[in-house]
Amino acid sequence: MSPIVEAAALSLPRAMAAAAAEMDEALDALLPAVEGPEGRLYEAMRYATIGGGKRLRGFLALEGARQFGVSRNAALRVAAAIEMVHAYSLVHDDLPAMDDDDLRRGKPTVHRAFDEATAILAGDALQCHAFTVLAEEDTHRDPAVRAELVRGLSRAAGPRGMCGGQMLDMLAEYADEPLSESQVGRLQTLKTGKLIEFAAESGAILGKAPPQLRHALCLYGRELGAAFQIADDLLDATASADEAGKRTGKDAAAGKATLVGLLGPERARLQAERLVAQAKAHLDGFTERVDHLRMLADFTIQRRS
Amino acid sequence: MSPIVEAAALSLPRAMAAAAAEMDEALDALLPAVEGPEGRLYEAMRYATIGGGKRLRGFLALEGARQFGVSRNAALRVAAAIEMVHAYSLVHDDLPAMDDDDLRRGKPTVHRAFDEATAILAGDALQCHAFTVLAEEDTHRDPAVRAELVRGLSRAAGPRGMCGGQMLDMLAEYADEPLSESQVGRLQTLKTGKLIEFAAESGAILGKAPPQLRHALCLYGRELGAAFQIADDLLDATASADEAGKRTGKDAAAGKATLVGLLGPERARLQAERLVAQAKAHLDGFTERVDHLRMLADFTIQRRS
Repeated sequence: MSPIVEAAALSLPRAMAAAAAEMDEALDALLPAVEGPEGRLYEAMRYATIGGGKRLRGFLALEGARQFGVSRNAALRVAAAIEMVHAYSLVHDDLPAMDDDDLRRGKPTVHRAFDEATAILAGDALQCHAFTVLAEEDTHRDPAVRAELVRGLSRAAGPRGMCGGQMLDMLAEYADEPLSESQVGRLQTLKTGKLIEFAAESGAILGKAPPQLRHALCLYGRELGAAFQIADDLLDATASADEAGKRTGKDAAAGKATLVGLLGPERARLQAERLVAQAKAHLDGFTERVDHLRMLADFTIQRRS
Repeated sequence: MSPIVEAAALSLPRAMAAAAAEMDEALDALLPAVEGPEGRLYEAMRYATIGGGKRLRGFLALEGARQFGVSRNAALRVAAAIEMVHAYSLVHDDLPAMDDDDLRRGKPTVHRAFDEATAILAGDALQCHAFTVLAEEDTHRDPAVRAELVRGLSRAAGPRGMCGGQMLDMLAEYADEPLSESQVGRLQTLKTGKLIEFAAESGAILGKAPPQLRHALCLYGRELGAAFQIADDLLDATASADEAGKRTGKDAAAGKATLVGLLGPERARLQAERLVAQAKAHLDGFTERVDHLRMLADFTIQRRS
C-alpha cells in the first residue's frame, strides 16, 4: 500500500500522529545533531522543534499537498519549514521580554532549558533555516515554486503577518484601553491566521494547483485559523496547564483582549462553529482526499489541548 | 552621463556615500512608514536600518552587480535585503541577554530607543522581510536567480553562518579557556565572514555571471571579510567611542578572544595587509569597473570608524 492510501485510511488523530512522526523525522534530518562548539545552537533548535506540538500547520501543508499528488519528501520539507517558523515564534514569544513563559509543549521553554542568548539565536537560526530549506532544489525542481514558497512564508511571518500581530499583542498589553472586537480580530489574523492560511495554501503552491483550488485552500485555512484561535482562547480560559501543556489562564491574568473575553464563551463558541462550517464549505470543490481536512476543521473546536 | 559611468568616476568615499544614500532610499521604499498600531514595528525596523552604518555589505553587492551590468533597481533591492539582515543581527546582538549595548551607529540601540520586545520583533521582522524582498519578482524576473539569492543569504545568515558564529562568540565568553587562533578565525568566518562573502557574490548571482568570475568575487569577499574583522578589532582596541560611533574597548573588557589580542596589534595589522593583497589579486580577472573594489580592500584596513 502506498503511503498516501495508507494515510487516507486512518482516523484523524491517528493520521495526525503519523504525520507528526514523519515531520519529526524530517526535522531530525534537516536539523542534524552537530558535534563541536556550535552543537549547542543545533541542540536548542532541535529542542524547540522536534517531538512536540500538534503540528497543525505542518499537517495542513501535508494534506494540501496530498490533494495534488505532491511527493511526500517535498511536502515534508515544506511542512518542516513552516513548523520551524512556528517554533521560532514560540521561542521568541516565550522570552522574558515578551510573554515570559516557563512551560511550552509540556517542557521548559528554550530560554529556561538553555539560556536567553541561546533562545534568541536558536529562534533566529530556525527562521533563517526555514528559508534555506524552501530555497533548496530538493523542495521542488522548479525554482518558480521555491521562490513562491519563500515569498508566501516570509509574507505570512513578516511585519504584515506574524511579527506585526505579535507587535499588536504587545501594544495591547501596554495600552490602557481594551481592544475592540474588530481590533482583536485583526490582531489574531496577523498573529496566527496568516501562517495557518499559508500552511493550507502551501501544498497547492507545491502542487502547482489550479488557481481556484489554491484559493479555496487559502480560504479554508483562513476560516480554520480564526476558529483555531477562538478555540485556543477558550482552552486558555477553561483548561488546566496539565491538559494544555503550557500555562493557561494567562490571557485573563495579562488583561489580554480575546474574542472569548469580549463575546463570552458561549457566543465565542458559536462563532467558532460558524467559522468551521464555512471552512468546510470551501472544500466542496475537491472530490477526494479531503476527509482529513474536513475532520480537522471539526477537531479544531473539539480539542482539549 | 549614465549613473554607472558617473559612479565609476567618484573617489571611494564619495562613491560609498552616494551608494549609502541610494540604499537609504531603497530601504525607505521597502520599509515604508506605516500608520496605525503596527506602525511602531516599522518605525523600529526603519530606525535600525535607515541612515546609519558604512553599508560595506550593500556596497559590495552593488559593486559586484555593476561588473555585470545589472539594473540599479535590482542591485539596490539585493543590497537592501543584505543590509536588513546585517541590521537585524546588530539589533539582536545588542540586546541585554547578548552583548548588552546602549550605543550603535552613534545613537541609542533599538531596545534602548524602543524596548526589548520591540527590538526582538523588529529584528525578527527585518530578517523575514529581507527574504520577501529577494523572493519578489522585482528583484529578478528569473525565479532561479531569486531562489539562489534566498538560498545564499539564508545559508550565510543561518546556523552554519552568522547565527552559528554568534553562538560561538557567546560560548567563548562563558568559557574559562581562551580560544586558539584557529578557533577565533573560524568564529569570525561564521559570524561576519559568510555574510560579507555572500554580499560580494550576490551581484554575480544577480548578473548570472560566469562561474569563474562569480567564484573570484566570492574569494575576494572572503579575504576582505577576514581583513575587515581584524581592522574592526584593531579599531575596538584603539579608537574612541566618538570615532567609532559605538562602545569601544569592549572586547578586552569582556575578555573576548580576537586575533588582535592573540597576535598583538602589529602582527594582526600585517595579517590584515596580507589578506587585502590577496583580496585584490582575486580581481585580476576583471577588466574594468573594479577600481572601487580594489580601493575598498585598501580602505578596509585604513578606516577610523
